[in-house]
Amino acid sequence: MSAPHDADSVNAKLLTQGGFIDKLAAGVYNFLPLGLRVLHKIHNIIREEMNAIDGQEILMPSLHPIDIWKTTGRDKSMEDILFTSKGAGDKDFVFGPSHEETVTPLAGKFIRSYKDLPVSVYQIQTKFRNEPRTKSGILRGREFIMKDMYSFHKDEKSLDEYYDKVLDAYLRVYERCSLKAHVVQASGGAFSKNLSHEFSIETKAGEDTILVCKKCGFAQNIEVAEGKVVDDNVPLEEEKEFEVVKALRGKSVVDNAKFHNVGLEKILKTVVYAYDGGFVGVLIRGDLNVNEDKLSNFLNKKVRPASRKEIKELGLVEGYISPVKVAKVEGGVKHGAEVRSESFVSELEFIADYSIKNVKNFVTGGNEEGVDFVNVNLGRDFVVETFGDFVLVKDGFKCPKCGGELDEITAIEAGNIFKLGTKYSDAFNLKFTDEDGKQKPVVMGCYGIGTTRLLGTIVEWHHDDKGIVWPMAVAPYHVHLLYLGKSEEVIEKANFIYEDFKRVGIEVLFDDRNESAGKKLNDADLIGIPIRVLISDRTLKEDEVEFKLRSEDKGVNVKINELKDKVISLIFK
Amino acid sequence: MSAPHDADSVNAKLLTQGGFIDKLAAGVYNFLPLGLRVLHKIHNIIREEMNAIDGQEILMPSLHPIDIWKTTGRDKSMEDILFTSKGAGDKDFVFGPSHEETVTPLAGKFIRSYKDLPVSVYQIQTKFRNEPRTKSGILRGREFIMKDMYSFHKDEKSLDEYYDKVLDAYLRVYERCSLKAHVVQASGGAFSKNLSHEFSIETKAGEDTILVCKKCGFAQNIEVAEGKVVDDNVPLEEEKEFEVVKALRGKSVVDNAKFHNVGLEKILKTVVYAYDGGFVGVLIRGDLNVNEDKLSNFLNKKVRPASRKEIKELGLVEGYISPVKVAKVEGGVKHGAEVRSESFVSELEFIADYSIKNVKNFVTGGNEEGVDFVNVNLGRDFVVETFGDFVLVKDGFKCPKCGGELDEITAIEAGNIFKLGTKYSDAFNLKFTDEDGKQKPVVMGCYGIGTTRLLGTIVEWHHDDKGIVWPMAVAPYHVHLLYLGKSEEVIEKANFIYEDFKRVGIEVLFDDRNESAGKKLNDADLIGIPIRVLISDRTLKEDEVEFKLRSEDKGVNVKINELKDKVISLIFK
Repeated sequence: MSAPHDADSVNAKLLTQGGFIDKLAAGVYNFLPLGLRVLHKIHNIIREEMNAIDGQEILMPSLHPIDIWKTTGRDKSMEDILFTSKGAGDKDFVFGPSHEETVTPLAGKFIRSYKDLPVSVYQIQTKFRNEPRTKSGILRGREFIMKDMYSFHKDEKSLDEYYDKVLDAYLRVYERCSLKAHVVQASGGAFSKNLSHEFSIETKAGEDTILVCKKCGFAQNIEVAEGKVVDDNVPLEEEKEFEVVKALRGKSVVDNAKFHNVGLEKILKTVVYAYDGGFVGVLIRGDLNVNEDKLSNFLNKKVRPASRKEIKELGLVEGYISPVKVAKVEGGVKHGAEVRSESFVSELEFIADYSIKNVKNFVTGGNEEGVDFVNVNLGRDFVVETFGDFVLVKDGFKCPKCGGELDEITAIEAGNIFKLGTKYSDAFNLKFTDEDGKQKPVVMGCYGIGTTRLLGTIVEWHHDDKGIVWPMAVAPYHVHLLYLGKSEEVIEKANFIYEDFKRVGIEVLFDDRNESAGKKLNDADLIGIPIRVLISDRTLKEDEVEFKLRSEDKGVNVKINELKDKVISLIFK
Repeated sequence: MSAPHDADSVNAKLLTQGGFIDKLAAGVYNFLPLGLRVLHKIHNIIREEMNAIDGQEILMPSLHPIDIWKTTGRDKSMEDILFTSKGAGDKDFVFGPSHEETVTPLAGKFIRSYKDLPVSVYQIQTKFRNEPRTKSGILRGREFIMKDMYSFHKDEKSLDEYYDKVLDAYLRVYERCSLKAHVVQASGGAFSKNLSHEFSIETKAGEDTILVCKKCGFAQNIEVAEGKVVDDNVPLEEEKEFEVVKALRGKSVVDNAKFHNVGLEKILKTVVYAYDGGFVGVLIRGDLNVNEDKLSNFLNKKVRPASRKEIKELGLVEGYISPVKVAKVEGGVKHGAEVRSESFVSELEFIADYSIKNVKNFVTGGNEEGVDFVNVNLGRDFVVETFGDFVLVKDGFKCPKCGGELDEITAIEAGNIFKLGTKYSDAFNLKFTDEDGKQKPVVMGCYGIGTTRLLGTIVEWHHDDKGIVWPMAVAPYHVHLLYLGKSEEVIEKANFIYEDFKRVGIEVLFDDRNESAGKKLNDADLIGIPIRVLISDRTLKEDEVEFKLRSEDKGVNVKINELKDKVISLIFK
């Protein structure tokens, strides 16, 4: 297959070209024989790890009566991504995007007493989510396969213990797929109660950015990452006298720093955000950026940058916004705290990131085109009542846990685990009789890995410019066997090796096509099976084959009678 | 689990009670750990057989853009059972009830020339069908799992060859599941072109009735079955004189035969059917019944029995309908062919089943309450222009192929295979370049087995009044291990056996619950694992266990050191 025109990512491009998948519609893919073999291997790895922590495999349906979704209110809260359909008898069905609504009442049929707990069930099953935009090949689809597990406990302690077990099992899954996973706190930040974790897989072209501490390994999604601003570059100095200066300059922070010949960290930057119902100016050090997600979380309102038009309507001058209120008075100016009650600049509310607290003698705009304020100091020249952590953490920040240096990497979220508590047990009245004879709500956890996404993630990491480089554990076949030329002896020997390998459980893809050497070798590189065995007149003359690992550049010649042992030692090591 | 209130069939009852499945909604089931183990074993049997005939496993999506269904017109023709949903961007999706619409264009991306043919792909995948009524547990669901295979050929000959291979592979699947399958012609009858076959599995409570020849095994669905009427009970006699007699009797054929003291076969029965646009009277021997499906096929119109009201409006007298037209003339009657042009009875058109041809001196109604005609003869007293095979074939008929006796059995259709020809290739313009350089349409076949249905079918056949009796090949476990009492020594020995068995690949369900002997033994019978191994103080005293096959009534005592070999010999025989 040639590359699809709309291949928007490495995984889609290589998997399509290599004949692993084929796109039917946006976010909807066929799995072809090669792709399905990989998927089954991934599923079996996951099965083994889930069984090892006493997960019991079940299979729940995709067709959910909408009533159970009404019970949790997710028919509304997830409405945008639900596929629904009317069944015979006018009953509405949801096509399951997740299975809390089915597993909780199901558990209720089997859980009576504390003796029935803990229990954990999982399934490997197709999910349907009506994603408005699909992208990144099989990383985010409308139809995808997921391993979802649900655990049931008598108390938080039991949940906590099991949660940790699952976390370890997930890490084993990624390791067996030769992926480097970072455990990321998905919400709540470093020091709050940990309710959920994501597993972020390092990739060259991920959709997430995460910050990993080089020292302790603590990982955070950039959207919520906390980190200590590095203050080393901010000079400690005395407060100098406030000045108003003419400053005909460009509007950016960089223009401002350049004009005044100071570092970016000396610029008091204001970023204006709009939210439903108003606007807010966020003050932050000029070398830092505001994290919109953190700001939205803080305000509990979705924010967006204000438009130029909105900024103008607010009475602000783009590039010259300042929290310093200056009153022109006879013979000079009154400024700062003294004029706070007067309102001739703008009624915009200002809040500030903690980063501005340690800087003296800021430079800021003068609320007027071509006018700047210099030596602006917090408390003296302007007042802020609300501080928060709004900073977009980046490379080089310090770890909030250990102070080590944070490293910014791109990653794909390929799994997440949640402590659900009693959210769903309460909704479905899932109770058990405890040892003390009392009825108590069951405590739940849930745990998901998108398996088709995991397949795509493996390709995102394990490829080179020639094609995929499958890790052995998930490779569609162990060996790619091919011959060059049309010599009968060569073909016969190749067939002999094929049958001999199959007999001992070595999985062989045998390229017996009548194609050119170039085509055969290129296809082998594209498909990416770990071991390539090539036989030709030249090698056969020495009773040898060329043996090459996909991960290495050069092959070596191996005697045919030593070949099988060599292959076996690599597969089952 | 206790039996569900709405368990409408043996499979639903036993599978639910035994903890294999749980109903979420009508026709929608959860597969619990035991049930999923059986399903996976069935899937693996099918995989092995499909791979053995060069089927390549793929996985197609459930979400189909509606456009591909419009291409074949099945968006309309199957509208009633399609689940559809609107996706983001207002695109309509069909949730796949079958996959001809996806596999044909997919094949088009890979098939170029005759060298690419034949090729066969299959998937084991969930189907969605909005069945108006669901019944029979997992035999007919709204969501179910199916193995569907599609093959692609350069000509009819290649299709025919592969079709026969698939037919054999299907028979091996049923045999490995310990089911007796009959290959039934699904349409076209015994001597027409065979375009499709069904696999009917004999069950005690099936939804289909099929007729199997005791001699040659030829099987037919009763809906279309042909069979030779047994004429042995029809006496050969001379035509006697036509009579009109008073007959105050009941309206049934039996009443008629009794009144005139003749066999049922001497009654000329008329059954009136309504169709869109008119009515037809079907003449048939009194001991036989009309097959509505055959009649509908013959007329190419859907028929239904006419109502009493309609019969009256047609000028007919229920119970006394006759094709004999009798004109009252002075001094007597004129009847039959002589009065065909006169129309004083009814303008109803009569057609006749072949069965009336060999009977002389019929008794029939007199088109008047309380009047019968006696010694009615075809040709002399009435004329029929259209004859057909409308008879509902039943037990005791003769095989149309070999003349052997037909046996009527109840069965479940658990698979079907179709020669599609170029129906879908034409719709999607799927062509290949043949050896002669010409572009030709690809010839297709398709082949389906409902795997969840197959599971239910196994239970329908393999059960007794205590529960399920799984065949070894699909049993959830090989051995059900249990102990009685609470003796530490017994429990220890049971645990030893459990671990010892697991080590060598024997699958053991270990009932280590603290339950009564009665409960444990009843559950073992209900769940139906083939081998039961029971250990108690009593057996342990003799270094023995009780070894019992689920299919047998009595167990035997076996020395513990001989147990494993005995079990292995049964599992892997």
